Amino acid sequence: MLSINRLSQSEARILINGAERKAEEIGVPMCIAITDESGNLIAFKRMDGGKIHSITIAQDKAFTAASACKGTHEYNEACVPGNKNYLFGIQTALGGRLSIVGGGLPVLVDGNVVGGIGISSGTPQQDMSCAQAGIEYFEKYNL
Amino acid sequence: MLSINRLSQSEARILINGAERKAEEIGVPMCIAITDESGNLIAFKRMDGGKIHSITIAQDKAFTAASACKGTHEYNEACVPGNKNYLFGIQTALGGRLSIVGGGLPVLVDGNVVGGIGISSGTPQQDMSCAQAGIEYFEKYNL
Amino acid sequence: MLSINRLSQSEARILINGAERKAEEIGVPMCIAITDESGNLIAFKRMDGGKIHSITIAQDKAFTAASACKGTHEYNEACVPGNKNYLFGIQTALGGRLSIVGGGLPVLVDGNVVGGIGISSGTPQQDMSCAQAGIEYFEKYNL
Amino acid sequence: MLSINRLSQSEARILINGAERKAEEIGVPMCIAITDESGNLIAFKRMDGGKIHSITIAQDKAFTAASACKGTHEYNEACVPGNKNYLFGIQTALGGRLSIVGGGLPVLVDGNVVGGIGISSGTPQQDMSCAQAGIEYFEKYNL
Repeated sequence: MLSINRLSQSEARILINGAERKAEEIGVPMCIAITDESGNLIAFKRMDGGKIHSITIAQDKAFTAASACKGTHEYNEACVPGNKNYLFGIQTALGGRLSIVGGGLPVLVDGNVVGGIGISSGTPQQDMSCAQAGIEYFEKYNL
Repeated sequence: MLSINRLSQSEARILINGAERKAEEIGVPMCIAITDESGNLIAFKRMDGGKIHSITIAQDKAFTAASACKGTHEYNEACVPGNKNYLFGIQTALGGRLSIVGGGLPVLVDGNVVGGIGISSGTPQQDMSCAQAGIEYFEKYNL
Repeated sequence: MLSINRLSQSEARILINGAERKAEEIGVPMCIAITDESGNLIAFKRMDGGKIHSITIAQDKAFTAASACKGTHEYNEACVPGNKNYLFGIQTALGGRLSIVGGGLPVLVDGNVVGGIGISSGTPQQDMSCAQAGIEYFEKYNL
Repeated sequence: MLSINRLSQSEARILINGAERKAEEIGVPMCIAITDESGNLIAFKRMDGGKIHSITIAQDKAFTAASACKGTHEYNEACVPGNKNYLFGIQTALGGRLSIVGGGLPVLVDGNVVGGIGISSGTPQQDMSCAQAGIEYFEKYNL
Protein backbone atom coordinates (compact mmCIF):
# COMPACT_ATOMS: atom_id res chain seq x y z
CA MET A 1 0.00 0.00 0.00
CA LEU A 2 1.26 3.45 -0.91
CA SER A 3 0.89 6.32 1.52
CA ILE A 4 0.14 9.66 -0.11
CA ASN A 5 -0.01 13.17 1.29
CA ARG A 6 -2.67 15.42 -0.17
CA LEU A 7 -3.64 19.05 0.30
CA SER A 8 -6.63 19.57 2.52
CA GLN A 9 -9.34 22.10 1.78
CA SER A 10 -7.99 24.53 4.35
CA GLU A 11 -4.52 24.32 2.85
CA ALA A 12 -5.96 24.86 -0.61
CA ARG A 13 -7.54 28.06 0.67
CA ILE A 14 -4.20 29.32 1.92
CA LEU A 15 -2.77 28.84 -1.58
CA ILE A 16 -5.68 30.71 -3.10
CA ASN A 17 -5.34 33.55 -0.61
CA GLY A 18 -1.68 33.98 -1.41
CA ALA A 19 -2.31 34.02 -5.14
CA GLU A 20 -5.24 36.37 -4.79
CA ARG A 21 -3.23 38.91 -2.78
CA LYS A 22 -0.70 39.08 -5.58
CA ALA A 23 -3.46 39.33 -8.19
CA GLU A 24 -4.98 42.28 -6.36
CA GLU A 25 -1.57 43.89 -6.00
CA ILE A 26 -0.95 43.78 -9.74
CA GLY A 27 -4.58 44.58 -10.52
CA VAL A 28 -5.42 41.52 -12.61
CA PRO A 29 -8.49 39.47 -11.63
CA MET A 30 -7.44 35.84 -11.95
CA CYS A 31 -8.87 32.36 -12.17
CA ILE A 32 -7.16 30.33 -9.46
CA ALA A 33 -7.35 26.52 -9.38
CA ILE A 34 -5.98 24.14 -6.77
CA THR A 35 -5.78 20.41 -7.43
CA ASP A 36 -4.68 17.51 -5.31
CA GLU A 37 -1.58 15.47 -6.08
CA SER A 38 -3.54 13.43 -8.64
CA GLY A 39 -4.60 16.52 -10.55
CA ASN A 40 -8.21 16.48 -9.36
CA LEU A 41 -9.73 19.84 -8.43
CA ILE A 42 -9.99 20.77 -4.75
CA ALA A 43 -10.79 24.48 -4.90
CA PHE A 44 -11.38 27.15 -7.49
CA LYS A 45 -11.92 30.89 -7.40
CA ARG A 46 -12.72 33.15 -10.32
CA MET A 47 -12.10 36.63 -9.03
CA ASP A 48 -14.65 39.16 -10.28
CA GLY A 49 -13.57 39.85 -13.85
CA GLY A 50 -11.58 36.63 -14.33
CA LYS A 51 -11.74 35.39 -17.91
CA ILE A 52 -14.08 32.66 -19.04
CA HIS A 53 -11.57 30.58 -20.97
CA SER A 54 -9.24 30.82 -18.01
CA ILE A 55 -11.65 28.72 -15.94
CA THR A 56 -10.48 25.70 -17.88
CA ILE A 57 -6.89 26.77 -18.43
CA ALA A 58 -6.24 27.42 -14.74
CA GLN A 59 -7.45 23.91 -13.95
CA ASP A 60 -5.35 22.43 -16.74
CA LYS A 61 -2.26 24.23 -15.48
CA ALA A 62 -2.76 22.97 -11.94
CA PHE A 63 -3.43 19.43 -13.20
CA THR A 64 -0.33 19.45 -15.37
CA ALA A 65 1.96 20.84 -12.69
CA ALA A 66 0.77 18.34 -10.08
CA SER A 67 1.01 15.41 -12.47
CA ALA A 68 4.40 16.35 -13.93
CA CYS A 69 5.89 17.71 -10.70
CA LYS A 70 7.18 20.75 -12.52
CA GLY A 71 6.09 24.19 -13.59
CA THR A 72 4.10 24.40 -16.81
CA HIS A 73 6.59 27.01 -18.06
CA GLU A 74 9.26 24.32 -18.04
CA TYR A 75 7.24 22.38 -20.60
CA ASN A 76 6.96 25.53 -22.64
CA GLU A 77 10.73 25.94 -22.84
CA ALA A 78 11.09 22.32 -23.99
CA CYS A 79 8.40 22.55 -26.68
CA VAL A 80 10.62 23.65 -29.53
CA PRO A 81 9.98 22.11 -32.96
CA GLY A 82 12.66 20.21 -34.80
CA ASN A 83 14.50 18.48 -31.99
CA LYS A 84 13.42 14.93 -31.25
CA ASN A 85 14.86 15.15 -27.75
CA TYR A 86 12.51 17.98 -26.97
CA LEU A 87 8.88 17.71 -26.01
CA PHE A 88 7.32 19.50 -28.94
CA GLY A 89 3.88 18.06 -29.53
CA ILE A 90 3.07 17.32 -25.90
CA GLN A 91 1.07 20.56 -25.78
CA THR A 92 -1.80 18.82 -27.59
CA ALA A 93 -1.85 15.69 -25.41
CA LEU A 94 -4.98 14.81 -23.45
CA GLY A 95 -7.08 16.85 -25.84
CA GLY A 96 -5.01 19.89 -24.98
CA ARG A 97 -5.54 19.45 -21.24
CA LEU A 98 -1.80 19.17 -20.76
CA SER A 99 -0.89 22.83 -20.44
CA ILE A 100 2.53 24.18 -21.32
CA VAL A 101 1.72 27.83 -20.62
CA GLY A 102 3.36 29.36 -17.57
CA GLY A 103 1.21 29.74 -14.48
CA GLY A 104 1.07 26.19 -13.13
CA LEU A 105 3.25 25.04 -10.26
CA PRO A 106 3.42 21.88 -8.19
CA VAL A 107 2.89 22.19 -4.46
CA LEU A 108 5.66 20.34 -2.69
CA VAL A 109 6.02 19.33 0.94
CA ASP A 110 9.19 17.54 2.00
CA GLY A 111 9.99 17.00 -1.68
CA ASN A 112 6.72 15.25 -2.48
CA VAL A 113 3.92 16.60 -4.61
CA VAL A 114 0.80 17.20 -2.56
CA GLY A 115 -1.09 19.29 -5.10
CA GLY A 116 -0.95 21.82 -7.88
CA ILE A 117 -1.81 25.50 -8.36
CA GLY A 118 -2.83 26.98 -11.69
CA ILE A 119 -3.45 30.62 -12.52
CA SER A 120 -4.92 32.13 -15.67
CA SER A 121 -6.25 35.46 -16.98
CA GLY A 122 -3.09 37.54 -17.17
CA THR A 123 0.11 37.28 -19.14
CA PRO A 124 2.16 34.15 -18.50
CA GLN A 125 4.49 36.22 -16.33
CA GLN A 126 1.59 37.59 -14.31
CA ASP A 127 0.09 34.12 -13.97
CA MET A 128 3.44 32.71 -12.89
CA SER A 129 4.00 35.43 -10.32
CA CYS A 130 0.59 34.77 -8.75
CA ALA A 131 1.19 31.02 -8.70
CA GLN A 132 4.55 31.62 -7.06
CA ALA A 133 2.95 33.98 -4.55
CA GLY A 134 0.45 31.27 -3.65
CA ILE A 135 3.25 28.80 -3.04
CA GLU A 136 5.23 31.25 -0.91
CA TYR A 137 2.19 32.19 1.14
CA PHE A 138 1.49 28.51 1.71
CA GLU A 139 5.06 27.82 2.79
CA LYS A 140 4.97 30.77 5.16
CA TYR A 141 1.61 30.29 6.81
CA ASN A 142 1.03 26.55 6.67
CA LEU A 143 2.79 25.39 9.79
CA MET B 1 -9.63 -12.17 -46.33
CA LEU B 2 -6.57 -10.67 -44.66
CA SER B 3 -4.56 -12.64 -42.16
CA ILE B 4 -3.16 -10.56 -39.32
CA ASN B 5 -0.69 -11.38 -36.57
CA ARG B 6 -1.35 -9.79 -33.21
CA LEU B 7 0.50 -9.75 -29.91
CA SER B 8 -0.94 -12.07 -27.31
CA GLN B 9 -1.30 -11.13 -23.66
CA SER B 10 1.77 -13.18 -22.72
CA GLU B 11 3.85 -11.45 -25.39
CA ALA B 12 2.64 -8.07 -24.17
CA ARG B 13 3.93 -8.99 -20.73
CA ILE B 14 7.37 -9.72 -22.12
CA LEU B 15 7.48 -6.27 -23.65
CA ILE B 16 6.42 -4.69 -20.35
CA ASN B 17 9.00 -6.64 -18.42
CA GLY B 18 11.78 -5.53 -20.73
CA ALA B 19 10.77 -1.90 -20.50
CA GLU B 20 10.35 -2.07 -16.74
CA ARG B 21 13.83 -3.49 -16.24
CA LYS B 22 15.31 -0.52 -18.05
CA ALA B 23 13.07 1.89 -16.12
CA GLU B 24 14.32 0.43 -12.85
CA GLU B 25 17.89 0.61 -14.09
CA ILE B 26 17.64 4.32 -14.83
CA GLY B 27 15.50 4.96 -11.76
CA VAL B 28 12.45 6.44 -13.46
CA PRO B 29 9.03 4.93 -12.68
CA MET B 30 7.25 4.73 -16.02
CA CYS B 31 3.80 4.28 -17.49
CA ILE B 32 4.06 1.40 -19.96
CA ALA B 33 1.34 0.67 -22.52
CA ILE B 34 1.11 -2.16 -25.04
CA THR B 35 -1.40 -2.09 -27.87
CA ASP B 36 -2.23 -4.56 -30.57
CA GLU B 37 -1.54 -3.89 -34.24
CA SER B 38 -4.77 -1.88 -34.48
CA GLY B 39 -3.77 0.42 -31.65
CA ASN B 40 -6.16 -1.05 -29.10
CA LEU B 41 -4.81 -1.50 -25.57
CA ILE B 42 -3.74 -4.98 -24.47
CA ALA B 43 -1.84 -4.27 -21.27
CA PHE B 44 -0.83 -1.32 -19.15
CA LYS B 45 1.35 -0.85 -16.10
CA ARG B 46 1.88 2.31 -14.11
CA MET B 47 4.93 1.67 -12.01
CA ASP B 48 4.60 3.12 -8.52
CA GLY B 49 5.29 6.81 -9.04
CA GLY B 50 4.45 6.92 -12.74
CA LYS B 51 2.88 10.22 -13.71
CA ILE B 52 -0.86 10.72 -14.06
CA HIS B 53 -0.81 12.48 -17.42
CA SER B 54 1.51 9.76 -18.72
CA ILE B 55 -1.29 7.21 -18.36
CA THR B 56 -2.86 8.66 -21.47
CA ILE B 57 0.32 9.68 -23.24
CA ALA B 58 1.87 6.20 -22.98
CA GLN B 59 -1.25 4.74 -24.59
CA ASP B 60 -1.28 7.41 -27.27
CA LYS B 61 2.36 6.73 -28.11
CA ALA B 62 1.75 3.00 -28.44
CA PHE B 63 -1.34 3.63 -30.56
CA THR B 64 0.49 6.02 -32.84
CA ALA B 65 3.54 3.79 -33.29
CA ALA B 66 1.42 0.72 -34.06
CA SER B 67 -0.78 2.63 -36.45
CA ALA B 68 2.02 4.46 -38.23
CA CYS B 69 4.55 1.63 -38.12
CA LYS B 70 7.24 4.00 -36.97
CA GLY B 71 8.61 5.54 -33.84
CA THR B 72 6.80 8.59 -32.50
CA HIS B 73 10.13 10.45 -32.47
CA GLU B 74 10.17 10.19 -36.27
CA TYR B 75 6.99 12.22 -36.39
CA ASN B 76 8.59 14.71 -34.05
CA GLU B 77 11.51 15.29 -36.38
CA ALA B 78 9.11 15.89 -39.25
CA CYS B 79 6.92 18.35 -37.33
CA VAL B 80 8.81 21.49 -38.23
CA PRO B 81 6.71 24.56 -39.09
CA GLY B 82 6.98 26.33 -42.40
CA ASN B 83 7.77 23.49 -44.74
CA LYS B 84 4.84 22.19 -46.75
CA ASN B 85 6.56 18.85 -47.23
CA TYR B 86 6.77 18.34 -43.50
CA LEU B 87 4.11 17.07 -41.12
CA PHE B 88 3.72 20.06 -38.88
CA GLY B 89 0.17 20.15 -37.55
CA ILE B 90 -0.32 16.40 -37.34
CA GLN B 91 0.37 16.60 -33.61
CA THR B 92 -3.15 17.90 -33.07
CA ALA B 93 -4.85 15.17 -35.08
CA LEU B 94 -7.35 12.89 -33.36
CA GLY B 95 -7.81 15.40 -30.55
CA GLY B 96 -4.11 15.16 -29.79
CA ARG B 97 -4.20 11.37 -29.55
CA LEU B 98 -1.64 11.16 -32.35
CA SER B 99 1.55 11.52 -30.36
CA ILE B 100 4.75 12.88 -31.83
CA VAL B 101 6.80 12.73 -28.65
CA GLY B 102 9.53 10.09 -28.51
CA GLY B 103 8.77 6.92 -26.56
CA GLY B 104 6.46 5.00 -28.88
CA LEU B 105 7.75 2.17 -31.06
CA PRO B 106 6.05 -0.37 -33.31
CA VAL B 107 6.51 -4.03 -32.49
CA LEU B 108 7.54 -5.87 -35.64
CA VAL B 109 7.70 -9.58 -36.38
CA ASP B 110 8.95 -10.62 -39.81
CA GLY B 111 8.55 -7.05 -40.95
CA ASN B 112 4.90 -6.81 -39.98
CA VAL B 113 3.42 -4.71 -37.20
CA VAL B 114 1.94 -6.88 -34.48
CA GLY B 115 1.59 -4.20 -31.83
CA GLY B 116 2.96 -1.05 -30.28
CA ILE B 117 4.76 -0.04 -27.11
CA GLY B 118 4.48 3.39 -25.52
CA ILE B 119 6.42 4.76 -22.56
CA SER B 120 5.89 8.00 -20.65
CA SER B 121 7.00 9.72 -17.45
CA GLY B 122 10.64 10.50 -18.19
CA THR B 123 12.38 12.66 -20.74
CA PRO B 124 11.83 11.67 -24.38
CA GLN B 125 15.27 10.05 -24.34
CA GLN B 126 14.46 8.03 -21.24
CA ASP B 127 11.10 7.03 -22.64
CA MET B 128 12.69 6.01 -25.93
CA SER B 129 15.36 3.92 -24.23
CA CYS B 130 12.75 2.02 -22.22
CA ALA B 131 10.62 1.41 -25.30
CA GLN B 132 13.68 0.14 -27.11
CA ALA B 133 14.59 -2.08 -24.16
CA GLY B 134 11.10 -3.59 -24.29
CA ILE B 135 11.52 -4.37 -27.98
CA GLU B 136 14.95 -5.92 -27.48
CA TYR B 137 13.75 -8.02 -24.57
CA PHE B 138 10.84 -9.23 -26.66
CA GLU B 139 13.11 -10.12 -29.57
CA LYS B 140 15.44 -12.00 -27.25
CA TYR B 141 12.95 -13.95 -25.15
CA ASN B 142 9.99 -14.44 -27.45
CA LEU B 143 10.99 -17.54 -29.40
CA MET C 1 -2.64 17.65 5.15
CA LEU C 2 -4.65 14.57 4.25
CA SER C 3 -3.08 11.14 4.39
CA ILE C 4 -4.31 8.77 1.69
CA ASN C 5 -3.76 5.06 1.16
CA ARG C 6 -3.38 3.93 -2.43
CA LEU C 7 -3.03 0.55 -4.10
CA SER C 8 0.48 -0.29 -5.15
CA GLN C 9 1.33 -1.95 -8.44
CA SER C 10 1.83 -5.31 -6.73
CA GLU C 11 -1.55 -5.06 -5.04
CA ALA C 12 -3.17 -4.16 -8.33
CA ARG C 13 -1.73 -7.37 -9.78
CA ILE C 14 -3.34 -9.42 -7.01
CA LEU C 15 -6.70 -7.93 -7.91
CA ILE C 16 -6.17 -8.72 -11.58
CA ASN C 17 -5.11 -12.26 -10.83
CA GLY C 18 -8.20 -12.91 -8.75
CA ALA C 19 -10.50 -11.53 -11.43
CA GLU C 20 -8.71 -13.42 -14.17
CA ARG C 21 -9.05 -16.74 -12.35
CA LYS C 22 -12.82 -16.28 -12.23
CA ALA C 23 -12.90 -15.19 -15.86
CA GLU C 24 -11.08 -18.35 -16.87
CA GLU C 25 -13.40 -20.42 -14.71
CA ILE C 26 -16.49 -19.07 -16.44
CA GLY C 27 -14.79 -19.06 -19.83
CA VAL C 28 -15.16 -15.37 -20.67
CA PRO C 29 -12.03 -13.43 -21.67
CA MET C 30 -12.31 -10.11 -19.85
CA CYS C 31 -10.87 -6.63 -19.87
CA ILE C 32 -9.68 -5.93 -16.33
CA ALA C 33 -8.80 -2.44 -15.13
CA ILE C 34 -7.43 -1.31 -11.77
CA THR C 35 -7.39 2.33 -10.76
CA ASP C 36 -6.08 4.10 -7.70
CA GLU C 37 -8.36 5.84 -5.19
CA SER C 38 -8.50 8.89 -7.47
CA GLY C 39 -9.70 6.87 -10.44
CA ASN C 40 -6.40 7.01 -12.35
CA LEU C 41 -5.33 3.79 -14.06
CA ILE C 42 -2.67 1.64 -12.41
CA ALA C 43 -2.91 -1.59 -14.36
CA PHE C 44 -4.89 -3.07 -17.23
CA LYS C 45 -5.11 -6.49 -18.82
CA ARG C 46 -7.11 -7.44 -21.89
CA MET C 47 -7.24 -11.21 -21.82
CA ASP C 48 -6.87 -12.70 -25.30
CA GLY C 49 -10.33 -12.25 -26.81
CA GLY C 50 -11.45 -9.42 -24.55
CA LYS C 51 -13.67 -6.96 -26.40
CA ILE C 52 -12.42 -3.70 -27.89
CA HIS C 53 -15.14 -1.46 -26.50
CA SER C 54 -14.58 -3.04 -23.09
CA ILE C 55 -11.09 -1.52 -22.93
CA THR C 56 -12.68 1.81 -22.17
CA ILE C 57 -15.69 0.52 -20.27
CA ALA C 58 -13.59 -1.50 -17.82
CA GLN C 59 -11.56 1.61 -17.04
CA ASP C 60 -14.70 3.71 -16.69
CA LYS C 61 -16.24 1.20 -14.29
CA ALA C 62 -13.12 1.16 -12.10
CA PHE C 63 -12.95 4.96 -12.16
CA THR C 64 -16.62 5.29 -11.21
CA ALA C 65 -16.48 2.73 -8.42
CA ALA C 66 -13.34 4.25 -6.89
CA SER C 67 -14.72 7.76 -7.16
CA ALA C 68 -18.20 6.93 -5.88
CA CYS C 69 -17.12 4.34 -3.31
CA LYS C 70 -19.83 1.99 -4.48
CA GLY C 71 -20.50 -0.64 -7.09
CA THR C 72 -21.52 0.60 -10.51
CA HIS C 73 -24.58 -1.68 -10.34
CA GLU C 74 -25.87 0.45 -7.47
CA TYR C 75 -25.99 3.41 -9.80
CA ASN C 76 -27.82 1.26 -12.31
CA GLU C 77 -30.56 0.44 -9.84
CA ALA C 78 -30.99 4.12 -9.08
CA CYS C 79 -31.14 5.19 -12.73
CA VAL C 80 -34.87 4.84 -13.20
CA PRO C 81 -36.62 7.58 -15.17
CA GLY C 82 -39.45 9.65 -13.74
CA ASN C 83 -38.45 9.82 -10.10
CA LYS C 84 -36.80 13.04 -9.06
CA ASN C 85 -35.18 11.31 -6.09
CA TYR C 86 -33.43 8.89 -8.38
CA LEU C 87 -30.24 9.39 -10.35
CA PHE C 88 -31.56 8.96 -13.86
CA GLY C 89 -29.42 11.02 -16.23
CA ILE C 90 -26.15 10.57 -14.37
CA GLN C 91 -25.19 7.86 -16.90
CA THR C 92 -24.34 10.58 -19.41
CA ALA C 93 -22.14 12.57 -17.02
CA LEU C 94 -18.48 13.11 -17.89
CA GLY C 95 -19.17 12.31 -21.54
CA GLY C 96 -20.45 8.90 -20.50
CA ARG C 97 -17.32 8.12 -18.50
CA LEU C 98 -19.45 7.68 -15.39
CA SER C 99 -20.48 4.06 -15.79
CA ILE C 100 -23.67 2.67 -14.29
CA VAL C 101 -23.30 -0.85 -15.67
CA GLY C 102 -22.47 -3.59 -13.18
CA GLY C 103 -18.86 -4.73 -13.03
CA GLY C 104 -17.15 -1.92 -11.15
CA LEU C 105 -16.36 -2.21 -7.43
CA PRO C 106 -14.41 -0.04 -5.02
CA VAL C 107 -11.42 -1.58 -3.27
CA LEU C 108 -11.68 -0.91 0.44
CA VAL C 109 -9.12 -1.32 3.21
CA ASP C 110 -10.20 -0.50 6.75
CA GLY C 111 -13.27 1.17 5.33
CA ASN C 112 -11.35 3.53 3.08
CA VAL C 113 -11.23 3.48 -0.71
CA VAL C 114 -7.76 2.65 -1.94
CA GLY C 115 -8.68 1.88 -5.55
CA GLY C 116 -11.23 0.50 -7.98
CA ILE C 117 -11.65 -2.59 -10.12
CA GLY C 118 -13.61 -2.63 -13.37
CA ILE C 119 -14.47 -5.63 -15.52
CA SER C 120 -16.03 -5.71 -18.98
CA SER C 121 -16.67 -8.12 -21.84
CA GLY C 122 -19.33 -10.42 -20.38
CA THR C 123 -22.85 -9.88 -19.13
CA PRO C 124 -23.19 -7.51 -16.18
CA GLN C 125 -23.56 -10.55 -13.91
CA GLN C 126 -20.39 -12.11 -15.27
CA ASP C 127 -18.53 -8.83 -14.99
CA MET C 128 -19.77 -8.36 -11.43
CA SER C 129 -18.73 -11.87 -10.40
CA CYS C 130 -15.21 -11.34 -11.72
CA ALA C 131 -14.90 -7.98 -10.00
CA GLN C 132 -16.06 -9.57 -6.77
CA ALA C 133 -13.60 -12.43 -7.23
CA GLY C 134 -10.81 -9.90 -7.61
CA ILE C 135 -11.81 -8.23 -4.35
CA GLU C 136 -12.02 -11.51 -2.47
CA TYR C 137 -8.67 -12.69 -3.79
CA PHE C 138 -7.14 -9.39 -2.71
CA GLU C 139 -8.63 -9.65 0.77
CA LYS C 140 -7.37 -13.21 1.10
CA TYR C 141 -3.83 -12.86 -0.23
CA ASN C 142 -2.92 -9.28 0.56
CA LEU C 143 -1.68 -9.50 4.13
CA MET D 1 1.08 -14.67 -31.34
CA LEU D 2 -2.61 -14.47 -32.21
CA SER D 3 -3.76 -15.03 -35.77
CA ILE D 4 -6.67 -12.85 -36.84
CA ASN D 5 -8.82 -12.87 -39.94
CA ARG D 6 -9.89 -9.48 -41.25
CA LEU D 7 -12.11 -8.30 -44.08
CA SER D 8 -10.24 -7.15 -47.14
CA GLN D 9 -11.24 -4.08 -49.12
CA SER D 10 -12.83 -6.21 -51.85
CA GLU D 11 -14.90 -8.09 -49.30
CA ALA D 12 -15.98 -4.83 -47.71
CA ARG D 13 -17.23 -3.73 -51.12
CA ILE D 14 -19.37 -6.86 -51.43
CA LEU D 15 -20.99 -6.05 -48.11
CA ILE D 16 -21.69 -2.49 -49.25
CA ASN D 17 -23.13 -3.68 -52.54
CA GLY D 18 -25.52 -6.04 -50.79
CA ALA D 19 -26.70 -3.35 -48.40
CA GLU D 20 -27.03 -0.77 -51.16
CA ARG D 21 -29.21 -3.05 -53.30
CA LYS D 22 -31.64 -3.39 -50.42
CA ALA D 23 -31.52 0.35 -49.76
CA GLU D 24 -32.43 1.05 -53.38
CA GLU D 25 -35.18 -1.56 -53.25
CA ILE D 26 -36.84 0.12 -50.27
CA GLY D 27 -36.04 3.60 -51.60
CA VAL D 28 -34.01 4.90 -48.65
CA PRO D 29 -30.56 6.37 -49.36
CA MET D 30 -28.33 5.04 -46.62
CA CYS D 31 -24.98 5.64 -44.99
CA ILE D 32 -23.12 2.33 -45.06
CA ALA D 33 -20.01 1.70 -42.96
CA ILE D 34 -17.76 -1.36 -42.90
CA THR D 35 -15.17 -1.85 -40.17
CA ASP D 36 -12.58 -4.50 -39.58
CA GLU D 37 -12.74 -6.88 -36.63
CA SER D 38 -11.18 -4.23 -34.37
CA GLY D 39 -13.84 -1.70 -35.23
CA ASN D 40 -11.64 0.45 -37.46
CA LEU D 41 -13.21 1.76 -40.66
CA ILE D 42 -12.43 -0.02 -43.94
CA ALA D 43 -15.03 1.41 -46.30
CA PHE D 44 -17.84 3.91 -46.24
CA LYS D 45 -20.51 5.00 -48.70
CA ARG D 46 -23.05 7.75 -48.24
CA MET D 47 -25.60 7.16 -50.95
CA ASP D 48 -26.86 10.37 -52.54
CA GLY D 49 -29.32 11.74 -49.96
CA GLY D 50 -27.93 9.85 -46.99
CA LYS D 51 -28.22 11.83 -43.77
CA ILE D 52 -25.39 13.82 -42.27
CA HIS D 53 -25.70 12.57 -38.71
CA SER D 54 -25.83 9.05 -40.05
CA ILE D 55 -22.24 9.35 -41.23
CA THR D 56 -21.16 8.99 -37.64
CA ILE D 57 -23.92 6.67 -36.47
CA ALA D 58 -23.32 4.12 -39.23
CA GLN D 59 -19.67 3.95 -38.22
CA ASP D 60 -20.56 3.64 -34.55
CA LYS D 61 -22.96 0.81 -35.31
CA ALA D 62 -20.36 -1.11 -37.28
CA PHE D 63 -17.74 -0.50 -34.59
CA THR D 64 -20.07 -1.69 -31.84
CA ALA D 65 -21.22 -4.80 -33.68
CA ALA D 66 -17.68 -5.85 -34.54
CA SER D 67 -16.39 -5.23 -31.04
CA ALA D 68 -19.30 -6.86 -29.23
CA CYS D 69 -19.86 -9.64 -31.76
CA LYS D 70 -23.57 -9.04 -31.75
CA GLY D 71 -26.18 -6.89 -33.40
CA THR D 72 -26.65 -3.41 -32.00
CA HIS D 73 -30.38 -4.14 -31.67
CA GLU D 74 -29.52 -6.78 -29.07
CA TYR D 75 -28.02 -4.07 -26.90
CA ASN D 76 -31.17 -2.04 -27.40
CA GLU D 77 -33.34 -4.80 -26.01
CA ALA D 78 -31.10 -5.11 -22.95
CA CYS D 79 -31.06 -1.39 -22.22
CA VAL D 80 -34.09 -1.26 -19.96
CA PRO D 81 -33.87 0.94 -16.85
CA GLY D 82 -34.35 -0.45 -13.35
CA ASN D 83 -32.76 -3.89 -13.67
CA LYS D 84 -29.17 -4.17 -12.56
CA ASN D 85 -28.69 -7.30 -14.63
CA TYR D 86 -29.51 -5.34 -17.76
CA LEU D 87 -27.21 -3.08 -19.67
CA PHE D 88 -28.98 0.21 -19.24
CA GLY D 89 -26.45 3.01 -19.30
CA ILE D 90 -24.09 1.39 -21.76
CA GLN D 91 -25.61 3.52 -24.51
CA THR D 92 -23.60 6.50 -23.31
CA ALA D 93 -20.26 4.65 -23.06
CA LEU D 94 -17.31 5.82 -25.16
CA GLY D 95 -18.86 9.26 -25.46
CA GLY D 96 -21.91 7.69 -27.06
CA ARG D 97 -19.85 5.85 -29.66
CA LEU D 98 -21.22 2.57 -28.39
CA SER D 99 -24.43 2.36 -30.41
CA ILE D 100 -27.47 0.43 -29.25
CA VAL D 101 -29.69 1.35 -32.18
CA GLY D 102 -30.53 -1.42 -34.62
CA GLY D 103 -28.58 -1.45 -37.88
CA GLY D 104 -25.18 -2.80 -36.83
CA LEU D 105 -24.23 -6.43 -37.37
CA PRO D 106 -20.99 -8.37 -36.92
CA VAL D 107 -19.55 -10.08 -39.99
CA LEU D 108 -18.74 -13.67 -39.11
CA VAL D 109 -16.70 -16.27 -40.97
CA ASP D 110 -16.38 -19.72 -39.43
CA GLY D 111 -17.76 -18.32 -36.21
CA ASN D 112 -15.14 -15.59 -35.87
CA VAL D 113 -15.69 -11.85 -36.22
CA VAL D 114 -13.88 -10.50 -39.25
CA GLY D 115 -15.61 -7.13 -39.39
CA GLY D 116 -18.76 -5.12 -38.82
CA ILE D 117 -21.43 -3.45 -40.93
CA GLY D 118 -23.41 -0.42 -39.82
CA ILE D 119 -26.32 1.24 -41.59
CA SER D 120 -28.04 4.52 -40.81
CA SER D 121 -30.52 6.96 -42.35
CA GLY D 122 -33.76 4.98 -42.19
CA THR D 123 -35.83 3.55 -39.38
CA PRO D 124 -34.06 0.99 -37.21
CA GLN D 125 -35.98 -1.73 -39.06
CA GLN D 126 -34.90 -0.38 -42.43
CA ASP D 127 -31.32 -0.05 -41.24
CA MET D 128 -31.39 -3.57 -39.86
CA SER D 129 -32.81 -5.01 -43.08
CA CYS D 130 -30.06 -3.39 -45.13
CA ALA D 131 -27.35 -4.59 -42.76
CA GLN D 132 -28.79 -8.08 -42.96
CA ALA D 133 -28.93 -7.84 -46.76
CA GLY D 134 -25.26 -6.91 -46.79
CA ILE D 135 -24.40 -9.95 -44.70
CA GLU D 136 -26.45 -12.29 -46.89
CA TYR D 137 -24.96 -10.93 -50.07
CA PHE D 138 -21.49 -11.39 -48.60
CA GLU D 139 -22.23 -14.97 -47.59
CA LYS D 140 -23.63 -15.72 -51.04
CA TYR D 141 -20.98 -14.13 -53.24
CA ASN D 142 -17.84 -14.30 -51.17
CA LEU D 143 -16.64 -17.80 -52.00
